[in-house]
Amino acid sequence: MTTGALASMIGAVIDGDPDIRLNGFAKIEEASTGQLTFIANPKYSHYLESTSASAVLVSTGFDHPNPRKVTLLRVEDPYATLASLLRVVNDAQPKKKGVESPAYISEGVAVPDDAYVGAFSYIGKGAVVGKGCQIYPQVYIGDGVEIGENCILYAGVKVYSGCKIGDRCILHSGVVIGGDGFGFAPSPEGKYEKIPQTGIVEIADDVEIGANTTIDRATFGATKIGRGTKLDNLIMVAHNVQIGEDNVFAAQTGVAGSTKIGSSNRIAGQVGFAGHITVGDHNDIGAQSGVPGNVGSGKRLMGYPAIDARKWAKNLVYINRLDSFFSSNKNDK
Amino acid sequence: MTTGALASMIGAVIDGDPDIRLNGFAKIEEASTGQLTFIANPKYSHYLESTSASAVLVSTGFDHPNPRKVTLLRVEDPYATLASLLRVVNDAQPKKKGVESPAYISEGVAVPDDAYVGAFSYIGKGAVVGKGCQIYPQVYIGDGVEIGENCILYAGVKVYSGCKIGDRCILHSGVVIGGDGFGFAPSPEGKYEKIPQTGIVEIADDVEIGANTTIDRATFGATKIGRGTKLDNLIMVAHNVQIGEDNVFAAQTGVAGSTKIGSSNRIAGQVGFAGHITVGDHNDIGAQSGVPGNVGSGKRLMGYPAIDARKWAKNLVYINRLDSFFSSNKNDK
Amino acid sequence: MTTGALASMIGAVIDGDPDIRLNGFAKIEEASTGQLTFIANPKYSHYLESTSASAVLVSTGFDHPNPRKVTLLRVEDPYATLASLLRVVNDAQPKKKGVESPAYISEGVAVPDDAYVGAFSYIGKGAVVGKGCQIYPQVYIGDGVEIGENCILYAGVKVYSGCKIGDRCILHSGVVIGGDGFGFAPSPEGKYEKIPQTGIVEIADDVEIGANTTIDRATFGATKIGRGTKLDNLIMVAHNVQIGEDNVFAAQTGVAGSTKIGSSNRIAGQVGFAGHITVGDHNDIGAQSGVPGNVGSGKRLMGYPAIDARKWAKNLVYINRLDSFFSSNKNDK
Repeated sequence: MTTGALASMIGAVIDGDPDIRLNGFAKIEEASTGQLTFIANPKYSHYLESTSASAVLVSTGFDHPNPRKVTLLRVEDPYATLASLLRVVNDAQPKKKGVESPAYISEGVAVPDDAYVGAFSYIGKGAVVGKGCQIYPQVYIGDGVEIGENCILYAGVKVYSGCKIGDRCILHSGVVIGGDGFGFAPSPEGKYEKIPQTGIVEIADDVEIGANTTIDRATFGATKIGRGTKLDNLIMVAHNVQIGEDNVFAAQTGVAGSTKIGSSNRIAGQVGFAGHITVGDHNDIGAQSGVPGNVGSGKRLMGYPAIDARKWAKNLVYINRLDSFFSSNKNDK
Repeated sequence: MTTGALASMIGAVIDGDPDIRLNGFAKIEEASTGQLTFIANPKYSHYLESTSASAVLVSTGFDHPNPRKVTLLRVEDPYATLASLLRVVNDAQPKKKGVESPAYISEGVAVPDDAYVGAFSYIGKGAVVGKGCQIYPQVYIGDGVEIGENCILYAGVKVYSGCKIGDRCILHSGVVIGGDGFGFAPSPEGKYEKIPQTGIVEIADDVEIGANTTIDRATFGATKIGRGTKLDNLIMVAHNVQIGEDNVFAAQTGVAGSTKIGSSNRIAGQVGFAGHITVGDHNDIGAQSGVPGNVGSGKRLMGYPAIDARKWAKNLVYINRLDSFFSSNKNDK
Repeated sequence: MTTGALASMIGAVIDGDPDIRLNGFAKIEEASTGQLTFIANPKYSHYLESTSASAVLVSTGFDHPNPRKVTLLRVEDPYATLASLLRVVNDAQPKKKGVESPAYISEGVAVPDDAYVGAFSYIGKGAVVGKGCQIYPQVYIGDGVEIGENCILYAGVKVYSGCKIGDRCILHSGVVIGGDGFGFAPSPEGKYEKIPQTGIVEIADDVEIGANTTIDRATFGATKIGRGTKLDNLIMVAHNVQIGEDNVFAAQTGVAGSTKIGSSNRIAGQVGFAGHITVGDHNDIGAQSGVPGNVGSGKRLMGYPAIDARKWAKNLVYINRLDSFFSSNKNDK
């Protein structure tokens, strides 16, 4: 595809040669001739002076010096445009189909013609696998599990019996859905008696779950992940938790039992949520924060325990001054 | 079973209709006709006014308004009673038996008649699997591993060679037992030379281990988890650690190498223990705490680093006052 | 082997009987007759008075009372000497060879004669497995993956398509290499659109990666782990991260996207690195630290957020004094 054809496809204003042939993508410091790259963050603008890329997606108002006259494609949001282009290329790639041997498919389970089931995968009794699903090798799908259409379960995903997964979900390797919630009743002698976890996990459409993340089944009812929510790697979602729609959770965050989290929250890495609390919508919670209680909506929180992020930053300033304060105070006496 | 029959089975005082037929459990806000539910925490008492449940387990002295005259079953500890009922129902369910094909069972290994070995599971040379074990698909049991009776190893559990697991243990998907401890000797040139980890992991009876938790083998001897201890998901137990009996560890906690932890401790989520320290019994350690040194017994700790929980809470109060203190102090001058 | 033969093999000065036969290793408090043990840390010296070991590796200048006249082998660095001895014993053990059945090996893939591929392992199209590799059961090696010589991939490791692993690497069970980076572009309506992750992961020689650690593939180019770096269990390395040589990272640490970390750093457990930052060489970063910005070289950091470790320790002292300070201040008025 030429720069000109691409520009008209993505609605870009072209600033340079429309006849360059493009054959791939790369980041600006690694791109070579024939490759398209992008500048989304102004701090990388200086790479324009040295890149070998043949064309660069930039924002409409971009005006960094361009001594080597690299062809620019001006769009409103270079990163979003890049993302759609990558999706187009990605979607054009052929999908795997068919059942590799040996796979274990319980009697009565129908694998759709256009689905893929890799070798050493296991599909339990009464399980349902939707059209177009890509079940990689060594996946375990327990009895009665329901998986919607066009999902991808990468190698080694485990889904315990009875859990439900929506359409277009992506589960990465090592994800465990539906392990028992951590529920024990202490006996009078101080032993812990297991409370059977009789519920399930329900994952709505368009959810993506990162490698080795675990979501436990509810004691009763369902642990729920809402539509469009994206969870990164090594996250823990405990039993009975309810997470709403369009949230992003960065890696190694944990949500303790029965907590309810709304929609459109952005949660950084290694955050911890206490159990049995309620968190609203559109919050922004900083890395390693510990959220001990209910949170409203539209807050920006940080800290251990998590408080308003500006207040937290102020406290830090004062803590770092304590040394000189106490020293001078001592001298006063 | 009727409410009356249930009441006499569990020793409850019935407060309402003894002839209602019950067919299942649910939590109070989701229960429907025919279901039994419970109120263990008084903060959920108001659901009694709206629930559709047919009967509710409550504590002996419960006296919230009951306008809809829901049948109450009064017991000393509603949650413990519920847990035993769930266990009765759970234990009555038929267990899987037999060896699915293909499984890889090394020559000379005898699988007990009443055990289950799922497809794609691997049992190494000289391994022992006890009576009544449920080995789900895709489990790896290394050479010489010993597993006691009536254990459940969910899909994809990995147990490295030589490790020992007691009776009635439950290991959830993704658990890794016996990976090499993190031991390296720095060379004079600053490279790290691996120290072979020649020990094992020993897990006593009645231990439950959550999804994707890892327990490393000892350099020499054994990393040990004591009877009745329950570990949640994504926990790290490093080499040479010794954990006693009847502890509960919440998710994402980590214990560094050679640390010894006693019995009956309650450890919250995302806690970190330094290496080579000793922790006593009956401690209560708050979420995200960092325990840097030895801990006695019966303490309540919190913080980074972990200190007495009340002292920690006081410090927080003062930190949050620093802003106004420094401001007013400035004005004084 | 006798104590005398061992002493001449390792260049030790023998202090006791040169004719004792040794048959194994153990730690000093557990060693029995015939076993060799060591004292590397002076705080364990007192065990010399009670150990049943037949010989003890100690440092050249060791002079703790030795009432039971245990044979001592004096070397410069007892722990390093022990480590090499363990390696000698370990390397002498026979390695597994051959392909167990059933394994899934794509057409055209050649497994070297001296390599081992365990049952239920999967090797994708165009993948390359080097000489002497030990691929344990239930491993997944995606299409086009390249694995160098003499690597060990323990049971259940997953390597996504296209990733590259050097020579002599060790990947423990549950490791996931090459899962999609966490990249989404928010749409104007607040939904998250997936940005396809088209890059790979490149792991250099002599890297060891602990159980259930995850390393995500780059958006473009490669996420890289440098030669000799050792990662413990349950670590998260996000997309586009570059980690240099000879680093050690303890368990449950996380590195956010696009961060660059140099060489010879020692990172403790549960540390978090922000994304898009640069960290130099030879830093020592304490447990649970949160590193929010760039770090030079040769620093000792601690805290949330991470600051100079001494400054952090001082701040703590003052924080713990706030109580008495505010109280006495109040009394003054």
